[in-house]
Amino acid sequence: MTEQELLDPARAPSREGVLRAAEKVAALLPPTPLLPLEVDGRTIWCKAEMLQPIGAFKIRGAWHRLSDLTPEQRARGVVGVSSGNHAQGVAWAARRLGIAATIVMPSNAPQAKLAATRALGAQVHLYDRASEDRDEIAAGLVAQSGATLVHAYGDPWIIEGQGTVGIEAAAQLEARTGQRPDRIVACCGGGGLAAGLALACPDADLYLAEPEGYDDLLRSLACGEIQSVADLSYPTDCDALQTPRTFQINFNILNGRVAGGAAVTPAEVTCAICATFEKLHLVVEPGGAAALAAVLAGKVPVTDATIVTLSGGNVDAETFARLLAAAA
Amino acid sequence: MTEQELLDPARAPSREGVLRAAEKVAALLPPTPLLPLEVDGRTIWCKAEMLQPIGAFKIRGAWHRLSDLTPEQRARGVVGVSSGNHAQGVAWAARRLGIAATIVMPSNAPQAKLAATRALGAQVHLYDRASEDRDEIAAGLVAQSGATLVHAYGDPWIIEGQGTVGIEAAAQLEARTGQRPDRIVACCGGGGLAAGLALACPDADLYLAEPEGYDDLLRSLACGEIQSVADLSYPTDCDALQTPRTFQINFNILNGRVAGGAAVTPAEVTCAICATFEKLHLVVEPGGAAALAAVLAGKVPVTDATIVTLSGGNVDAETFARLLAAAA
Repeated sequence: MTEQELLDPARAPSREGVLRAAEKVAALLPPTPLLPLEVDGRTIWCKAEMLQPIGAFKIRGAWHRLSDLTPEQRARGVVGVSSGNHAQGVAWAARRLGIAATIVMPSNAPQAKLAATRALGAQVHLYDRASEDRDEIAAGLVAQSGATLVHAYGDPWIIEGQGTVGIEAAAQLEARTGQRPDRIVACCGGGGLAAGLALACPDADLYLAEPEGYDDLLRSLACGEIQSVADLSYPTDCDALQTPRTFQINFNILNGRVAGGAAVTPAEVTCAICATFEKLHLVVEPGGAAALAAVLAGKVPVTDATIVTLSGGNVDAETFARLLAAAA
Repeated sequence: MTEQELLDPARAPSREGVLRAAEKVAALLPPTPLLPLEVDGRTIWCKAEMLQPIGAFKIRGAWHRLSDLTPEQRARGVVGVSSGNHAQGVAWAARRLGIAATIVMPSNAPQAKLAATRALGAQVHLYDRASEDRDEIAAGLVAQSGATLVHAYGDPWIIEGQGTVGIEAAAQLEARTGQRPDRIVACCGGGGLAAGLALACPDADLYLAEPEGYDDLLRSLACGEIQSVADLSYPTDCDALQTPRTFQINFNILNGRVAGGAAVTPAEVTCAICATFEKLHLVVEPGGAAALAAVLAGKVPVTDATIVTLSGGNVDAETFARLLAAAA
C-alpha cells in the first residue's frame, strides 16, 4: 500500500494499517501485561488494558488518529464522541500534541470519566443519552469549527489503532507459551476493537461479548444487516458498551468474520469483576469485564491459546464497592 | 564469591546474591509493570507487585529459596511462617517443585490469603497473633519433621529474592526515562524487602513506610538496636506488616543505610488505596499501600526518579469495599 492509501480517510482499514499503528503505539507506550487466569483447569490470557495511562485501550486508536493529523488539521482542533474512555484517549493525545479537543459525552457518564476527561484539558459537551443523537451533535460542532471528527469506532484510524491490542497480545502469548492465539474474546460496543482485532489476528476465531439489552452487533451479524439498540435507556452498568448501533465500516469487517458471542447479564459481569479483583488484583469496569463474563459464564468456550480483553478500568468507587459487596 | 559462599545458609546476603536471584526470577516470571503516577506535578514510579501470580512480591524470595534446596531437603519439605503473602509464595514455589509445605499463619489472616494458600496445596497451621510466638511454633514443626524453615524475612535467600524487585524496577526506569532510581520507598514489615532493596540499589536513598503501631523497624534504626512492637493487638488493616520485630540479618543490612521513613495512619493508607484504584486501576492491599501512603501524605519527599513499591493486592472484597466507601 502507498502512504497515500494508508492515510486516506475513506480507506477500508487493513492489517497493514494495524501494523503501522502498532509501531506508533509501541514507540509511545509500553505493552500492557498479558496475565494468565485459570478457568476450569485451563489457562486463559487476559490483556490488562486498564493499565494504559487513561485506563483503557482507547488511547491506542486516539493516538493513531491524532498523530496523523496535518498541521492545518491540528490547528482547527478535534471533536470526539464518547461515553468516556475514547473521550480520555482523545483528550490525552490532544494534550500531548497541543490540539484543542471537544468531546460529546452523555450526561450520565461515570463521574470518573467526566472528571478525567476535563482534567486532561478537553472541553466536554454533554448530551442526553436517551433522547439526543450524539453523532448529530458532533456533526454540528464540526460544521461550526472545521475541527476533525474523531469517532469512537466508525473511523479507519480508530479501528487500526484498537487492533494493536491484538498485535501486542499475540506477541506476548507467543513469547510466553510459543503459541499463536487461536481465539480472542472482545468486549464489544460499536465494534472498533472487534474490527481491529479481526484485522490484527486473521487466524484467530473472534468472539464478541455485549451487555444484555445492547447486543445489537451480534443481532446485526446474525441477520446480515445493521440493527440498532431497541431501548437506549435499558439499565446497565456497562456504560462503555451502550452504543446505539455499529457503523458500516465496522460491519463490513466483522460480517462473516465472527465465530460467536454472547450477551452477558449484570450478574455475570459482577462475577467477572470479582474474579478480576480476587485473582488478578485489577480494577475492571463493567463494560471492560464483558468478555471475561461471557467466558466465566460458559457462554464462550475457551482453548489453551485464548486471549480475553479486559478493556478498561474507569469505574466510580461507589459503583465498584457496590458490585463487590453484592457478590460477597 | 564462590558457589559455596552464595549458598551458605549463614552468609550475609550480598548484591551478587541478589543478581543471581534476579536471573532466576527473570527466567520464571515476566517483570511486573512499573507505572507512572503524577503526585503534585511530579511523576513517581509504582512497582505493581500485586500482578505477580500470587498477588505479591513474596513469590520472588520463596522461589529463590526453594529452588536452591537439595533433593534431600526437598524430600523433607518446608515450613513457612507468614501473615499470608509469603505463605502463598512458599506454597506456589513448593507446588511447582513438588515439595510438601506447611505454613504457620495467624488465625485472623484475611480469608483471601488463607484460602489461596490452601488452594495452592499447602498445609496451614493457625496460631493466635496476640498470644503465641509463631517462630517458636515453626521451630517445633521443623524439629519434628526435619523440614527446612523458610522464614518470611530473616533469611539470606528471602532477602536476596525480594531485592530482585529493585533490580527489575531500576532496569525499567532506566529504559523508560534514562534515569537510575535515586530514591526507593518500601512498604516495611520485618525488613526482608527493605534489606533486599538496600543491596539491589546501593546508590538509591531508601525510605521505609510502616503502619502506625508497627513502626518497630524505624524505631530500631533510630536507636541502633532491635526494638519490638509494643502491642501486637493494636488494630490495623495492614496485616502484611504486623511483624513483631526484625531479625539481626535484616538489621545489619539496614542499620545506617536508611535515609528516612514514616509510620502511616489508617486514613493515609485508605487514601493511597483509593488513588491506586482511581489512577492506576490496581487493587492494592492495605499493607501494600503503605509506601504510597507515606508519599501522598507528604511524609516522604519524592524526586523525579523515585520508585514506590505497591507490594501486594491480597485483600478481602469486604475490606476493600469498606475502604473505598469510607473514602467516597
